[in-house]
Parts: sequence; structure tokens; C-alpha cells
Amino acid sequence: MDTLVEDVHFDLHWHPPEKLGRKAVAVNVSDIAAMGGLPKFIFLSLGLPGQFDPVWVDRFTEGISGACREHDCVLAGGDTVRSREGILITVTVIGEMPADQVVYRSGARPGDEVWVSGTLGRAAAGLEICRSGIKTDPGEMQTLVEAHLDPRPRISLGRLLAGNKVAHAMMDLSDGLATDLSHLCQQSGVGAVVYAAELPALPVLREAADLLNRDPLDLMIRGGEDYELVFTAAAAAGTRIAKLGQQAGMRLSRVGTIVDRQGVRLILPAGGTNGPDEVDISFTGFDHFPQE
Amino acid sequence: MDTLVEDVHFDLHWHPPEKLGRKAVAVNVSDIAAMGGLPKFIFLSLGLPGQFDPVWVDRFTEGISGACREHDCVLAGGDTVRSREGILITVTVIGEMPADQVVYRSGARPGDEVWVSGTLGRAAAGLEICRSGIKTDPGEMQTLVEAHLDPRPRISLGRLLAGNKVAHAMMDLSDGLATDLSHLCQQSGVGAVVYAAELPALPVLREAADLLNRDPLDLMIRGGEDYELVFTAAAAAGTRIAKLGQQAGMRLSRVGTIVDRQGVRLILPAGGTNGPDEVDISFTGFDHFPQE
Repeated sequence: MDTLVEDVHFDLHWHPPEKLGRKAVAVNVSDIAAMGGLPKFIFLSLGLPGQFDPVWVDRFTEGISGACREHDCVLAGGDTVRSREGILITVTVIGEMPADQVVYRSGARPGDEVWVSGTLGRAAAGLEICRSGIKTDPGEMQTLVEAHLDPRPRISLGRLLAGNKVAHAMMDLSDGLATDLSHLCQQSGVGAVVYAAELPALPVLREAADLLNRDPLDLMIRGGEDYELVFTAAAAAGTRIAKLGQQAGMRLSRVGTIVDRQGVRLILPAGGTNGPDEVDISFTGFDHFPQE
Repeated sequence: MDTLVEDVHFDLHWHPPEKLGRKAVAVNVSDIAAMGGLPKFIFLSLGLPGQFDPVWVDRFTEGISGACREHDCVLAGGDTVRSREGILITVTVIGEMPADQVVYRSGARPGDEVWVSGTLGRAAAGLEICRSGIKTDPGEMQTLVEAHLDPRPRISLGRLLAGNKVAHAMMDLSDGLATDLSHLCQQSGVGAVVYAAELPALPVLREAADLLNRDPLDLMIRGGEDYELVFTAAAAAGTRIAKLGQQAGMRLSRVGTIVDRQGVRLILPAGGTNGPDEVDISFTGFDHFPQE
């Protein structure tokens, strides 16, 4: 179950209604994928201000329906209410899977390797591009914007990793690797070491980071909403995992190791004289309730 | 799935957090009860403004937990997000029942009798009392306020009516009898006649209506949120239904008849010379999006 609040989680200035509808389903389906399940039923609550555009609502619900068809699930109920201000979207997804294959966040063990699917920092860079007002060509830079507007949940991959019982712990990357991996480690009672040099990124991410005057590494470890999967598995499972990645058509990268010592530490490629070669990045990602 | 928006659906000036938590569960469980099912799993999404009172949140979640225990269901997931303004509550309930016993809104047939559980207009009068600022004694008038603050879903009754296959169509009264019965009739392709003289009310409702300068009949037919059940059944089932009502400990009243002619008409007790003795009350209840 996830709620999206206008101007907190989305901005209508750049988010087309169809893609917002698709995203509202995708971010929820992603939670099911992260346990290894298949989505079955969708429930939608839509809050609308006193004055709303019925065409917008039609296009939004088309996005919801399209995503349901694509993910093979059924819109089974919901509610429409008046909001005080702005649009409110809450989606609940019910999924299904064999009980003995469910993958939780709590199963990581010291010695496990940490894997991520796809590439990181795309959605965060895409959001920054939207915010900046920079016009992008329909080329590679646009893939970053699309990652923000229309994320794809990793259902097949999650199912394969769970069905083949290779993932010890798994979750989806919604708040950024630093925060999400911290949650996984906390719930498993372990820590992790992550190698900056191993973090997967599209080549265009560096280009975008330059344009936005942002550190690409920061986008990769603290940027939210990529909805890729992070999971841990025995070191011996590497070859098998690579094959499952091919089967799902997903790039998979080994980015770190689970350790006894609590916390998530990032190992930088070169420890220069002016900085640490290891930084604690535990819970340093996106926060909807920043300290003031 | 139902969403409650602060200052649209509830007012923190008079709604204690525990009771609001209980109500957020109750209004959803009521939808399950109205099909004849038993609630199993609850999902809660809570939207909070940037500045919120953690004590309020604790008390609210106590109300949620208490209602889950009372209704024998499990809080199985949810989300916490930042709202732009005010508190947002969305609850999804998943229920369970034998597939061949599910009661829909679409099964009403001409000749059926229309029944309602409990008494009507309580919650609307209670809300008006809260709004007016009138102080009520902890006596009968307070039962009206409690009906608004802490409604009770009719789970046992719904289960009995469905399990014994006596209800042809059923729904819960959330928007008022006029609107809800109109929905039921529309989905069944029929109409209804309702007898004003048969509508059940607590004696204190008239007293409250006088105090509030409101028509008690208007509170009964247009007042929302009583969360009683309205259902239709064959005329021959009357005795059986009366017994099921006793079993569930609920007063049941026969208030009308299903007819071929579309629309919901209210028959007034005495057709005076100055007014009609029959009025069309189709879809004349509470509306969250009033025409301006």
C-alpha cells in the first residue's frame, strides 16, 4: 500500500496523467515483486479537490487500467473522495505466491553478497531534470526522465529469484540504496559494505549529473524511486544468479557484502589524502520528514 | 477501501484519536459486513503534515489496533507519508466468505421488502451536535454523538443474512438511506417505495432535531454514516428475518417495498392539502461534491 500526495510525491507540471496512473500501480506492484510474488488485485482510492478536471481523471484511470493489464492484475475496488487540496492517490495491491518461497528483508547473513538489478540513480536524475526545466532530447537523457515518470517493477526477476530460492533477503529500491539497504540490514541484524566502483549506472547519468551540478555517486546511493531490486545471496550462487538475470532480461550487479558489523559503509574507489576511503551511509537517503 | 480526509470526513476538534482510528477501520469493515463477509486483513496508509503530534499518532494507532482485535482481523501492512496539509487516512480491508453466499447490491427484485437494521439518523444528528458546540449529558443524546464518533459495523448480522441466503441485495448506509437505496435500486434495475412512518429512530432523535432546528425525517433519510445495513428480501422471509435479527441482537425494520418503477419514493404519513403525500428522494443524500 502506497500513497502519493500531489506536490510531495508527484508534480502535475511534468507528470502526464497516464504515466502517473501507471506509476501509482507500479510502485505498489514493486513491493510484491520484492517478495517474489505476483500481483493479483488492485484497490485505488482517489482524492480530488472540489474543482477537478474530468479529462485528467479519465486519462489517469486509463493509466491505472493499462498498468493492471500489463501486470496481469484486476482493479477490484476503491473509493473516490474530496480532498482539501491537491490530488491524493492510494493504491493497495494484493499479490500471491507459494508461502515457502516468500523472501523477506530479514534473511541476510554475514558473507552474503549484495546484488542490485538494473542501474541506479536514474529516477533521481530524471526528477532533477524535470525540476530544472532543462529540455531533453528524446535520446538517452530522456530515459532518466522516463525512469522517474514511469518506473517498471521487476516482477519476473523477483519471481525467479524467489522461486529458485537464491535470494536470502530482498526489497525494492524506493528510498535509495543507502536507506533501503540500511532497513534490510537492520531487519536482518547485520551490516553491509558497498563498493562505489561496482555500482551500476547508465553512461548518461554522469552527463546528467554534470548538467545538474550533482555528484553522480550521490544520485546512485541516495536517489530514490529506481524500483530496482536489492537482494543478498550466498557467494556461491553467483553463476546461478547471473543466469536468472539473463532469463529475466535484467542486468544484475554484485555491489557489496553483508558483514557482522552493523551499519552500511561505502568504500570509495581511491582513498585520497584529503578524504576517507570509507564512509558510513546508513539511513542517509531520501526522507519525507526532514529534520528542521 | 475508504479514505478519510481531515476537515472533509472528520474534525479533530471533537474526534478523539482512538475513536477516529476505530472509525477508520469500522467504515471499511462495514463494507465487508454488507456483503456478508468477515474481515481478515487491514492495510493502513496514514498521511501526516510536516508538523504532527506523535502522541496523537500513538493514540490513533491504538484505536486501529483495538478495532482490529475487536473485529478479529490483522493489521497486515500500510504506508506513512507526508501530506501537504491535514491528516489523511486510507484503510483497505480484505474479507473472506464462501463465494456462493456473497450478497451484492444488484439482486433486488420487485416485490421484495426493504429492511434496515438499527435506527437511522443517529450519526447525522451526532455530527450536528458536535458542530453546534451544544454540550450533551452522558445520557441518550450522547448515543447520537457516539454513533458519529465510533460507529459499529454490523458484521454478525450481515454474516447471518448472507449465510442463510435470505438477503437478495444488501449494502451499508454510509451516504444516507435516500442515496444508498438509490444505488442499490439502480444496480438492481428496480425502484423502491419507502414508508416514512416505518423508519426506525431513537426517541432522542426528535429531541435532538428540535434542538438543532432540523427535520428528524430529513436526518433519517438523508443523514449519512449510520453504517446500518439496508437489504431486500422476499416478503415470505419476514419471520425468518425477525429471528436472525434477534440472533444478532439487532432491531430490524421493514421500511418499504421494491417496485418495477425506477427511482426511490418516500410515502409521507398523511397527505395534507398543502403538500404531496409522495416525494421522489432518489439520490438526494449527502454529496461530497455539491453543485455550486
